[in-house]
Amino acid sequence: MSELAEPTVDPADWTCPAPLRDQPVVVMGHGGGGALSAELIEQVFAPAYGNATLAALTDSAVLDLGGARLAFSTDSYVVRPLFFPGGGLGDLAVNGTVNDLAMSGARPAYLSAAFVLEEGVELAVVEKVARAMGAAAEAAGVVVATGDTKVVESGHGDGVYVTTSGVGLVPAGVDIRPQRARPGDVVIVSGPIGLHGVAVMSVREGLEFGVEIASDTAPLADLVAAMLAVTPDIHVLRDPTRGGLGASLNEIARASGTGVRLSERSIPVPDAVANACGFLGLDPLYVANEGRLVAFVPPSAAEEVLAAMRAHPQGSGAAVIGECVAEHPGMVVVATGLGGTRVVDLPLGEQLPRIC
Amino acid sequence: MSELAEPTVDPADWTCPAPLRDQPVVVMGHGGGGALSAELIEQVFAPAYGNATLAALTDSAVLDLGGARLAFSTDSYVVRPLFFPGGGLGDLAVNGTVNDLAMSGARPAYLSAAFVLEEGVELAVVEKVARAMGAAAEAAGVVVATGDTKVVESGHGDGVYVTTSGVGLVPAGVDIRPQRARPGDVVIVSGPIGLHGVAVMSVREGLEFGVEIASDTAPLADLVAAMLAVTPDIHVLRDPTRGGLGASLNEIARASGTGVRLSERSIPVPDAVANACGFLGLDPLYVANEGRLVAFVPPSAAEEVLAAMRAHPQGSGAAVIGECVAEHPGMVVVATGLGGTRVVDLPLGEQLPRIC
Repeated sequence: MSELAEPTVDPADWTCPAPLRDQPVVVMGHGGGGALSAELIEQVFAPAYGNATLAALTDSAVLDLGGARLAFSTDSYVVRPLFFPGGGLGDLAVNGTVNDLAMSGARPAYLSAAFVLEEGVELAVVEKVARAMGAAAEAAGVVVATGDTKVVESGHGDGVYVTTSGVGLVPAGVDIRPQRARPGDVVIVSGPIGLHGVAVMSVREGLEFGVEIASDTAPLADLVAAMLAVTPDIHVLRDPTRGGLGASLNEIARASGTGVRLSERSIPVPDAVANACGFLGLDPLYVANEGRLVAFVPPSAAEEVLAAMRAHPQGSGAAVIGECVAEHPGMVVVATGLGGTRVVDLPLGEQLPRIC
Repeated sequence: MSELAEPTVDPADWTCPAPLRDQPVVVMGHGGGGALSAELIEQVFAPAYGNATLAALTDSAVLDLGGARLAFSTDSYVVRPLFFPGGGLGDLAVNGTVNDLAMSGARPAYLSAAFVLEEGVELAVVEKVARAMGAAAEAAGVVVATGDTKVVESGHGDGVYVTTSGVGLVPAGVDIRPQRARPGDVVIVSGPIGLHGVAVMSVREGLEFGVEIASDTAPLADLVAAMLAVTPDIHVLRDPTRGGLGASLNEIARASGTGVRLSERSIPVPDAVANACGFLGLDPLYVANEGRLVAFVPPSAAEEVLAAMRAHPQGSGAAVIGECVAEHPGMVVVATGLGGTRVVDLPLGEQLPRIC
C-alpha cells in the first residue's frame, strides 16, 4: 500500500458522528435532517445530479411543467415501531408528503406509494398500513394513484418501509420558500411542539409519562389554504419534522441570510412533552413534529393570518413565537425566561433515529 | 380459542408460495411482478386506497392535473448486487422510472430520488450510485429535482435502496394502455430479451457463460417518441421488467380481454441468454429486461413503426413476434418451432428475486 493512501477505517470502529468529510461510512445521523443530512446533500447528491433545484433544500421542488407550476416531493418512511399513539407509518407516509407539498403553498393532488416489504411480515400488517394510508389520503383530499411493491429477504428490511411521492399545483401569485424570509417577518407556529417525537419514543422505549402522549400527525394543506386566503404573500412555510423546530428555523435563517429571534416563553411546549424531554435529556426544540408548521409572515398580515390559523382545527393552538431580524444572519437565538439569550444551533443528526 | 378461529400459521413454516388468500405472510414472490404481486394489489392495496386508478395496473398513472395529462410513476429498486455488467442500481432507478412514464407515451420530465441507506455502508458506494443516477438522468433528458435520505440500523437494510418517482406530460392524441389491445394488432419487441436478468444472475451467483452478458438497461422515452412520430395511435406499450415478456403479455391479454399468439422462432433470444437459461432451468420469456419494450400496433402502421424502431439505437434489434387475436381471450400462447403451441401463463412470482 502506498504511504499516501487513505487510511482504512473499519465501519465497526465508528461510534459517534463527525463531519461527513472525515467519515467513510453512513451513520444514523445522515438520516436525521440536521447538519449531517445537509452535508450529504451538498457534497454527494447535489454534485451527482448536477442541478440547483435540489440544492435549494426545500420540502418540495416547484417545477415548470407545460407552463403549470408543479410541486413535487418525496419521502421514505422507516419509522419504528409501525404503530404508535395517534397514528402509524401509514398516516406519516401520507401526511408527511402532503405537508411537504403544502409547505410550497401547493394544493396536493396525487400520491404514489412504494413499499419495500420484508419477507415474513404478516400480510395483516401490510393491510393495516395500507388502510391507514387510504384513510389519511381521503382525509387530506388526495388520491393514491400509483404504486409499487418490492420484497427483500428477512434480515434486509424491518417489516414495512414506504416511500411516498406527491404532486400538486401551486396557485398563481404564491411564492413560498426559505429564501423569502426577511427582517420584520413574524414567526408563527401552528400549535404545541414535540408531540410526535415523544409519542414514538415513549412507545418504542416502553416509557410512561403519567399521561399518554399522542403523535400530532395531521395533513396541513387545508390550514395552508386558509392562511393563503388571507394573503398570498406568506414568505416561508416549513413543517418541522426531523430535527424539529430548531433545524427548520436554522435552515430558513441560512437560506435567507437573516437571523431568527425567538421568545422561549411563547413557544408552546405541552407539560407532558417538557416533562418527557427533561427525563430523557432532550430539547423540545429538536423533537420531531408531524402535524405542525412554522410560518414567516409579513408583519402587516400577521394578526389576520394568526386569527385564520386559530379558527382552523389544525391551527387552534397557533402562537407567535418570534421574529425575523437583520442581526446575526444565519443564526437562531432564543430569549430565555431569565432575560438571557442562547443560540439554537443546527443539530448534527436526529436525537431520536427512525422517527419518521 | 374458538373452534371457528382461523388456524395460526407460523411464518417459519412457509416454504413455498401459494395463492395470497391462504397466506398470512409476505413471501419473495409478492415482489416478483407476477400473479402474487397482482393479488397483493387487487386484494390489499386497491381496496385500501379505494380508487380505480391504481387497479388499472399500468406502469404509470395518467392523471388530470389542472387540465394537463400528467403521467406519474414510482418504483423502489432493491437490486442485488448494486453493480453488475452493463449498469447498476443507479441506472435502473432512473431508466426504470423513465421507462414506466414512457410506456404511457409521456415525455419524462422530472424524477425524485429517495434513499434508504443501511448504517455502515461506505459513502463511496452511495456516491457511486448517485453519480450513476445523475449520468443516467442526463442521458434520458430528465432532471432529478427532489429527494430524501433515511438511514436504518445495520441489519435492517442492504446497503442502498432507492425509490424513484417520475412525472411527465402525455402529448395530445396519445392514449396508450393495456386495455386498448385489439385483435389484429401486431406485437413488436424492441430488441433481444433476457439480458438484464441473466447479467444480474450471473454476477450474483458467480456463474460464467463463456461470454460476459451485460444488462440492457437503457432509457426508452426517445424511442417511444420516434414511434409516436409515425403514428399517435399506438395501442399498448410495456417494458417487460420483472416477470419478463411472459408476465407483460399476460397482463395485456387480461386487461384487454384479447388473446396473444406468439411465434417462438421470431422472439429474439441471444444465444448467451438461451444457453444460460438452459443451464439454470429458466424460461427466457420470464427473465427481466430493463431496456426493452413490447408494443401493440395497428396493422396499418406496423411496418412503418417497425422501421422507425430499427432506425433508433434502442430499437435496432426490433422484431415482430406475434399478433393479438380474438381467440382464447386473456391467454398468451406461443407457436413452437415444432408446429405445436404452448400456453405462456402468468408467472406466480419472479424466477430471480431482487432483480430490480
